[in-house]
Formats: sequence, structure tokens, C-alpha cells
Amino acid sequence: MLDATTTDHNRETLARLLAPSARSDVPPFMVMDVMAAAERIEAAGGHVIHCEVGQPAAPAPRAAIAAAHAALDQNRIDYTSALGIAPLRTRIAQHYQDVYRCNVPAERVVVTTGSSAAFVLAFLAMFEPGDRVAVTVPGYPPYRHILKALGCVPVEIETHADTRYALTGEALLAAHRQAPLKGVLVASPGNPTGTMMTREALADLIAVAEREGIKFISDEIYHGLDYAFPAVSAAEMSPHAVVINSFSKYFCMTGWRVGWMVVPDALVRPIERLHQNLAISVPTLSQIAAAAAFEGREEMEAVKRGYQLNREILINGLPQAGLTEFLPADGAFYLYADVSKFTSDSAEFAQRMLAEARVAATPGADFDPVRGRHFIRFSYARSADDMREAVARIGRWLGR
Amino acid sequence: MLDATTTDHNRETLARLLAPSARSDVPPFMVMDVMAAAERIEAAGGHVIHCEVGQPAAPAPRAAIAAAHAALDQNRIDYTSALGIAPLRTRIAQHYQDVYRCNVPAERVVVTTGSSAAFVLAFLAMFEPGDRVAVTVPGYPPYRHILKALGCVPVEIETHADTRYALTGEALLAAHRQAPLKGVLVASPGNPTGTMMTREALADLIAVAEREGIKFISDEIYHGLDYAFPAVSAAEMSPHAVVINSFSKYFCMTGWRVGWMVVPDALVRPIERLHQNLAISVPTLSQIAAAAAFEGREEMEAVKRGYQLNREILINGLPQAGLTEFLPADGAFYLYADVSKFTSDSAEFAQRMLAEARVAATPGADFDPVRGRHFIRFSYARSADDMREAVARIGRWLGR
Repeated sequence: MLDATTTDHNRETLARLLAPSARSDVPPFMVMDVMAAAERIEAAGGHVIHCEVGQPAAPAPRAAIAAAHAALDQNRIDYTSALGIAPLRTRIAQHYQDVYRCNVPAERVVVTTGSSAAFVLAFLAMFEPGDRVAVTVPGYPPYRHILKALGCVPVEIETHADTRYALTGEALLAAHRQAPLKGVLVASPGNPTGTMMTREALADLIAVAEREGIKFISDEIYHGLDYAFPAVSAAEMSPHAVVINSFSKYFCMTGWRVGWMVVPDALVRPIERLHQNLAISVPTLSQIAAAAAFEGREEMEAVKRGYQLNREILINGLPQAGLTEFLPADGAFYLYADVSKFTSDSAEFAQRMLAEARVAATPGADFDPVRGRHFIRFSYARSADDMREAVARIGRWLGR
Repeated sequence: MLDATTTDHNRETLARLLAPSARSDVPPFMVMDVMAAAERIEAAGGHVIHCEVGQPAAPAPRAAIAAAHAALDQNRIDYTSALGIAPLRTRIAQHYQDVYRCNVPAERVVVTTGSSAAFVLAFLAMFEPGDRVAVTVPGYPPYRHILKALGCVPVEIETHADTRYALTGEALLAAHRQAPLKGVLVASPGNPTGTMMTREALADLIAVAEREGIKFISDEIYHGLDYAFPAVSAAEMSPHAVVINSFSKYFCMTGWRVGWMVVPDALVRPIERLHQNLAISVPTLSQIAAAAAFEGREEMEAVKRGYQLNREILINGLPQAGLTEFLPADGAFYLYADVSKFTSDSAEFAQRMLAEARVAATPGADFDPVRGRHFIRFSYARSADDMREAVARIGRWLGR
């Protein structure tokens, strides 16, 4: 083993041996720091209301858990084919018929290890190193970070209140004219904003993107969790769009790591080959459970009604507690609140709110490096009692 | 939606929209084609002996299955921290103490979604695009394909009978002098060869690599399955090496998709950040089951004795059946047989053997584009009866 204490040459060699790559230099999630601080308070006996994590408080559908039990007893848990088990791909295709009245053949469905793996596969299969891909800010940080790690150039386009924080065809065109874009990725309902794109907004954006030859990716992970109006899938609008979804949010299956993509015919085989090499297959038990999860819609609708109640509590309570400005909470389980009248450093604000009011929320800088310092994100995926208590604590803390 | 039937301009735009990236143009596994052909024969009522798939026939340890049942009943299956659950990281660290008498702190253990994800994380964290990384041929095809998809340049170094198909320091140096290498990856026991590196061979290779500033990755996925002599871990030899392992093979947990890495201190945080962004976390149930799997060593040793018996059957039976030349079957559950006296197209040979003798094996071209046309790989992870029948069928087929 190389010993660095001996010579300058060895020291230099060891430094080279241990140097991480430049492309691994992606930021962490700040939400992780908030979680760690909350855990420290709890370890010391404090009681924290958790509004920081984007994780449902409910378990997976009973049918999913039962299917996993049965599979554990009956089957070896073997590799599956790289595109996923046939019953799951077929059931997902059926889902598009049921929910969107839209025909998606099972052959275009690719099962993935959560939406995370779907992004990696989509970016690798669709883009070359150096390709510019538009993402919205505020937005989910891993979009930017995965693109960077894979050699692409994320082009951040700010969204604004006048368009419900939706990316417009006009804004996309403007960025494309500055320097050609190869792709664009949007999410509706969005994270951290909770805002949604209308059918018209999505249709317009897809039309502009396709006209310009810009590949379209629609992150639909929060579909099913829509309160303002029904969410629209890009799959309804074009067979050329890539749609990414997951069992993590609506079906409360975060830790199962199972999601899916709907891809154009031309991308099925390239993605299959990449998946064979990069992952072999998706966790088998999770695939079996996911296929059964669709039987749990009634349960999940009850969970959703819980989010709706939580949303009402926050929408009505936060203004009384002193947080009067926030984005339209159309969907998902997020409310993105403007705290600029209290601070221009939302990370510090979130820290103090946690330390003093014992309410954990996520600073906006995770999602928007510039304007995020004026925002914090509340997740309302826990109980109604927690939400009421959060509002009460914040009200006391802000002196209302 | 863009309609290609209207104008040349639209056709050209659509072609751009649907074009897969150049980097997605990685080869598939040929073994998949063999599997598909075997399935067709079985669907038509034929009976095939499966020696093509690198998948244990035994289920996961009972303790692992019991732990999964318990977790399904007791817990929500939530995200975990990106590096893995603490009990599993600690238990893996203990494993190095137990098996190798070697101190690996739990902080250097990273839990991954199978060894597949570990390769992606290692390559991204250790290498820049354009970096040259040495791999051996014959060798596991995804090494080359993942490296390529991530922009690195796999440098194939042929290994030979005179060194038990081990990569030597000398051969590494020769390649390094042609054009500098940034990394090297070896596997012992190897796939497809089943050959192993001696302690001296591994020590020499690591010393040369470190002296030259070449990062070292040791794929130890077949550790535990060693028959000729005990496998040696690179973790015993250097804290600078990256070790990759998995629960798929020794612990018969392929479809659970759970593995691990041991990484130098300097890489823990870069890999944690990449993992947070690219995957969030490893399937929770699989982590819980894996931590319990270590209780199943006795069961797994019985499975291993089964492989040992299968290995004897092949080693003694294949020469009588007419396949007299093969590599030393030191470990894993593979035997790499030279079929050059019958063919110079092992893919065609494997196809005929499947169609006529109903024995499925994998052509060597998957593992070695050049010399592989003279080899086929037998996997002996199924039952002893299957192995005896395979030998008998091949003997009849080859006219013995």
C-alpha cells in the first residue's frame, strides 16, 4: 500500500489516487441538513413537527404489502427482464387508459428503480455530453445535478407568478434562441412549488418544444395528488414525449424504489440496453408490489383527502400565523411560502424556526439558488394534528 | 403533436426529436438472446437445461426472508439515508473482520442498489470523461459498457492461461505506457472465467497500480464462492482501493438488488452526494433483508457445497462428453470451455447446442469480442441432476 509519509512523489501520487472526479462535485440536498438538525433536537428529547420531508406518512397500499408477503413465500426473488415484469408494464399501460383516457401500449412502458433511475436513463439515452437541457427554477435539485454529473448543461429558466410558475413556450423559445436547447424538463404538480400547469399551458409548451426539435420530458411523479384541477399527462398530448412517474408519492411507496417511464418507440431499445448494463433489473419484490398497488386506489384516495385537509389547514392557518404570501398550492403536498418580509436568508430562517418553534421546513435555496433565499417549502404529507400544531407554533413564534 | 407526414422540415425535426444519444449505443447482453431462445423452446414444450444464467437456484437465506416479512408488517418502507441503514453498514464492516481479519470502518461502507449501481457510482466519482480505465478480457461486459456510457475509455487487456487469466502488474504497466491509465478494474473470482487471483498476484497488481497513481477497483461479487483457495480482498491490502460486492451471488439475492462498496475516506462524501441525487436511497426492504442475511451463512455454505458438487460433475464429465479444454474453475459458478476444436463461432455453436441438445450456455463473445468466438460459458448454479443431464446431453450431441 502506498505510504504518503515517505516522499513528495508518493504524496503527489496518493493525492491523484484519492482525488474525486470533478463531475462528482454536485451539491447535497439542504433538506438533509434540516433533517439531521431535527433529529438532534429529537434525540435530546425535543418534539419537532416535520414539514421538511417529501415523504408520505401513510404506508403502501395493503394489496401491495400482501403481494410482497406472498411473493416472499412463493418465489425466488430473481432478476427480471430489464424493462420490467410484464404484468406491471401492462397494468401501468392500463392506468393511462383509466385515468387519462389515453392509449399507451405496454411496449412503451419501462419500469425503473424509482423516478431517480428514470432520470438517469432518460438523460443518458436522450442527450450527449454538452447538450443544453432546460429546467425550471424553482425546481427539484437533482434534475440539475444529474444532468451535470452526466456531462449535460442544465439551463435554468425562472418561472413567475404571472404564469402560475409554469414554464411558457415563449420563455423556452427565448432560451433556445440564446443557445440551442436539446431538451426541456417540466414537472406538474411541481416540487417545491406545488403549482400545476393547465392543459393549455402544457399543450402550448409541448407544441413549441416539438416544433423546435427540443426533446420533452414530463416529470409526473405527483400526479394523482391534484386539488385545483385534474393533472394532465404529456402522454395524452404526444407519443414523442418522455413521461416519468413513480409509486413513491400517490402510492406512498418511497422506500420501495419503483417508478416508470413512458418513452417514444425509438427510445425503448436504447433504454433497455442501458438498463441491462447499468442496473440489470428493478427490485423484483417492488415490481410485484407495485403491480398490486393499483388495487389500493380507494385507500390512497383516503390518504389524498388527508392531504387536502392538511392543505386547507395551512392555506387558512399560515396567513393568521403571519405567513401571508405563498404560491397557489394546486397539487403534490407542498406549499411554497414567501418569507421575504422576515428574512433574506431562508436557510437561517428555517434553522431558527426549527430551533425556536420546533417546526422543520426546507429552505428554498435547495430549489432556487437565487430567489430561494426568500422562500421556504412546507410539506403537508403528515397528520392534520401536526399541521394545526405547526400553524400554532409558527403563530406564537412570529408573535401573532 | 408533431406530424412527420406533412413537410420535409417536420420529418427532419421529428428525426432529431426521437434520435437516441450516441452514448446509449452500447451492446446488449447476448446471454439475453440465449435466454429468449430457451424460453421459446420451453414454451413449445421442450425441456432445456439452463447453464446460461449467472443466477443461483436457491432462494435468499431464511433469515433475510423473515426480516423482510417482519419489516412489511411493522414499518413504513421509507427512504433511508443515501449511504444505507446503519445496521447494514455496521454488519458489512463486521463481515470484513470475520472473513478477512481486516478492519474496515462502517463509515467507509456504502450500500448500493446491487453491484450495478456501485459501478455507476464508482466510475462517476473516480473518473472524468475521457479517462482511460483498464479492464480484462475476457470479462463482465457491463464494465466496458457502463464506462463508455459515462464517457470513459475502457482499455481492454487480454489475460492468458500462463497467469491463470489474472491481470499482471507487467501487463498493466505496458498498457499504461502506451497511454496513461486513470484506473483499473479486476474481478476475482472472475466472470466468465471462474478463475481467481492469488494473494501474490493481487498484491503485486495493487502495488503497481498505486505506484503509478492508477485507481484500483476490485469486483468481489463472487467472494465466498471459492473452491481452489480462499479469495483475497483488496480491502486487506489497501485503504485506497475501491471494493465492490453484492448480496446477489453468495447470498442468492439477485432480484433484491442490494450490494455494497468499500471506498477510501476521500470518496465517501462525493459518492454520498452522487447517490442522493442519482438514486436517493437503496430499496429499504432489501437493506433490512441483507442485514439479516449474514445469519444465513450455514444455509449458504450448504448451497456452496452444491456448487462444489456441480463443479466436480462438470470437471469430470465434460472431458468425457468431448469438451476437454477449459480454464481452471477456481471460483464463482462458471466454467469457461474452449470449443475451438468444434467451431470458430461460439454463438452459432451455443445456438445449435440449445436447439439440438437442449443445453443453454452463453457464447464467449459477450465477454471477449475476439477470442470469445472459441469459448462458451457454463453456469453451474443449478442442481446436480441438471449438471449430470447437461453432461449426458452434450456427450450424446457430440457423438460420444
